[in-house]
Amino acid sequence: MKAYLDNNRASKIDVQVMELMQQSLVEHYADPRARHADAIKSRTPLAQAYEKIKASIHAKDNDMVTIGSSVDELHCRLLISIYVNSVITGQKNQIILSASESDTVIETAEYIASQGCRITILPLNSDGVVDTDMLKQTITTKTALVSITMVDAQSGAIMAIDEASQICSEHGVPLHSDASHAIGKLPIDVQMLDIDYLTLSSETVHGPTGVAMLYIKEGIELPNLIQPNNNLVGIVGLGKALELAVDSQAFEMEDTRELRDALEESIREIEDHLIITPWALRTPNTLLVGFKDVSSDALVWELNRYGISVSGEKGRALTENTASDSIYKHTLVEFALSRYTSQEEMDYTIEKLKKSVEIIRTERAR
Amino acid sequence: MKAYLDNNRASKIDVQVMELMQQSLVEHYADPRARHADAIKSRTPLAQAYEKIKASIHAKDNDMVTIGSSVDELHCRLLISIYVNSVITGQKNQIILSASESDTVIETAEYIASQGCRITILPLNSDGVVDTDMLKQTITTKTALVSITMVDAQSGAIMAIDEASQICSEHGVPLHSDASHAIGKLPIDVQMLDIDYLTLSSETVHGPTGVAMLYIKEGIELPNLIQPNNNLVGIVGLGKALELAVDSQAFEMEDTRELRDALEESIREIEDHLIITPWALRTPNTLLVGFKDVSSDALVWELNRYGISVSGEKGRALTENTASDSIYKHTLVEFALSRYTSQEEMDYTIEKLKKSVEIIRTERAR
Repeated sequence: MKAYLDNNRASKIDVQVMELMQQSLVEHYADPRARHADAIKSRTPLAQAYEKIKASIHAKDNDMVTIGSSVDELHCRLLISIYVNSVITGQKNQIILSASESDTVIETAEYIASQGCRITILPLNSDGVVDTDMLKQTITTKTALVSITMVDAQSGAIMAIDEASQICSEHGVPLHSDASHAIGKLPIDVQMLDIDYLTLSSETVHGPTGVAMLYIKEGIELPNLIQPNNNLVGIVGLGKALELAVDSQAFEMEDTRELRDALEESIREIEDHLIITPWALRTPNTLLVGFKDVSSDALVWELNRYGISVSGEKGRALTENTASDSIYKHTLVEFALSRYTSQEEMDYTIEKLKKSVEIIRTERAR
Repeated sequence: MKAYLDNNRASKIDVQVMELMQQSLVEHYADPRARHADAIKSRTPLAQAYEKIKASIHAKDNDMVTIGSSVDELHCRLLISIYVNSVITGQKNQIILSASESDTVIETAEYIASQGCRITILPLNSDGVVDTDMLKQTITTKTALVSITMVDAQSGAIMAIDEASQICSEHGVPLHSDASHAIGKLPIDVQMLDIDYLTLSSETVHGPTGVAMLYIKEGIELPNLIQPNNNLVGIVGLGKALELAVDSQAFEMEDTRELRDALEESIREIEDHLIITPWALRTPNTLLVGFKDVSSDALVWELNRYGISVSGEKGRALTENTASDSIYKHTLVEFALSRYTSQEEMDYTIEKLKKSVEIIRTERAR
């Protein structure tokens, strides 16, 4: 028996996605920009993929979608482009990011800060989300960009992007959101959210690795941002994966939610645990938990011995200010299910998790 | 009957490459940076791919290889990195490029020029190559980078990279070469050439589209250049495609050369033609030709009616100074064969080419 519960990092490819990619690998080799019949043959699957990508987030026909190899890559390019086009020129003077952004993004923000741009990082509260009051206090009309993750990758906590969007539009500030861990888990409508930029990637929705997209609202121009990405097969895979993710969201995700909730129930039976994932406003597939006296590394390793794949996390919502938080620092493990996770996998995981926590605590006590 | 002769833009995927990629799509979904058994499973194919990539250009173990989605993307990033790290800092003041670089690269160079960096573009001579005497005249110890394409994408002319490398090293200037159209067509040894940077892509060697690599010689550090590209399946495809391209270079490419030479022979029988591809020092698969009074567009279109895919080109070696060159401007078409091109395809192409040139000239004369 095995269980793969690291789906917020990467997920198994959907067989329909794979078949479409395989067909494209064989048939759509010609450069779609060439001017012969073979090139024209490559254009249809590409156009269909872009349509699916746009449909998955309710983008309009005239909105732009640009492809990159990862959300981090696209997000970093967006930051640098905003910095070059709005900050260096003296029009704006600050970029606001949620603490939920990835290490790579935070590093790029630090680089921009070292060049003289004010960077404000909004911390996560005990529910693992950005407090929009904090945004209100820091945003000004000179803010160049606000970037808030739609769903925290580690805890699955859902941020109040609608409120953030309203605050941003009151100040005339563009808003970006990384929707990697939201897509397929909750409905996304860029028009309703009135969002300017949105990124998401393929690997968390049973698509291929190494392909991601940046949505840019109609009318926005970002010089030097867009470089051609000709990963035709990857784009085809992304399109299909997003279509399937959105289709499965309503039904299959409810089954996933039940399995996740069952895991949570059984974790509540284990002594001295901390559940970071909030009770309300959370995605159906994620649970971030810590066990006192059980380090992340030890638990990841122990579970791996039983064929259970999970990742240890830092837990960005930990404040390090309370006694409880300091006890659970370095103990957090993320369980990330997918629509492929089965009841058997979950039962097996619950059994082995209880055993593993006990073994590690016993070893430690000795 | 059909013939695909646009292989310098993109080529059919090799069945062995496809099978390996398909296997990776299914089995190697886990993030290789995670810390469980599924992640470890993803590391082996990735490590093997990097080994094959390095072996294909005789790179050393400690040399670096970074992945991007296209040679243009990597080349542009290299230019910007060199500009930021050597020119803005005041150490160097000039970048030299061959006229053979792509439009995207030339545009990025123009952007850098607009920021105050001296950009020198070395023209191609009548043989379609950079004159190394011109390099000698323009290079100084303040040159930040010299970038010369190894093989011209349009004509298949081979540049004297060994001479360029010697001139560069005499002045202590790093050398980059785009080897996209050299790999698999001639042996490449970065150690023998003593080259600092080399780029090549997968789509011209029967690999997947949207994946390319930048070789960086051991010891060179380029801050802000490297962003992670997690296109695992693409990297696996690139590795296999390069291995096969190098393996097939000695034998299969000789068959390709014979087919290309036969095409050239029969073109010599057509009145008023210009062959840009030089007689000596050229790759075995390419022929860039023009026919008086036959526009590129018309010929590409006419051949496409017979199921023959080729591309029209600008012909960078045309000087526009001679009467002959002005006659052949806008008439150039590139025939780019591959190891999959058959005798039958070539016979069919020769027959239809003669007919097409005649039809277009007759229509025009009417």
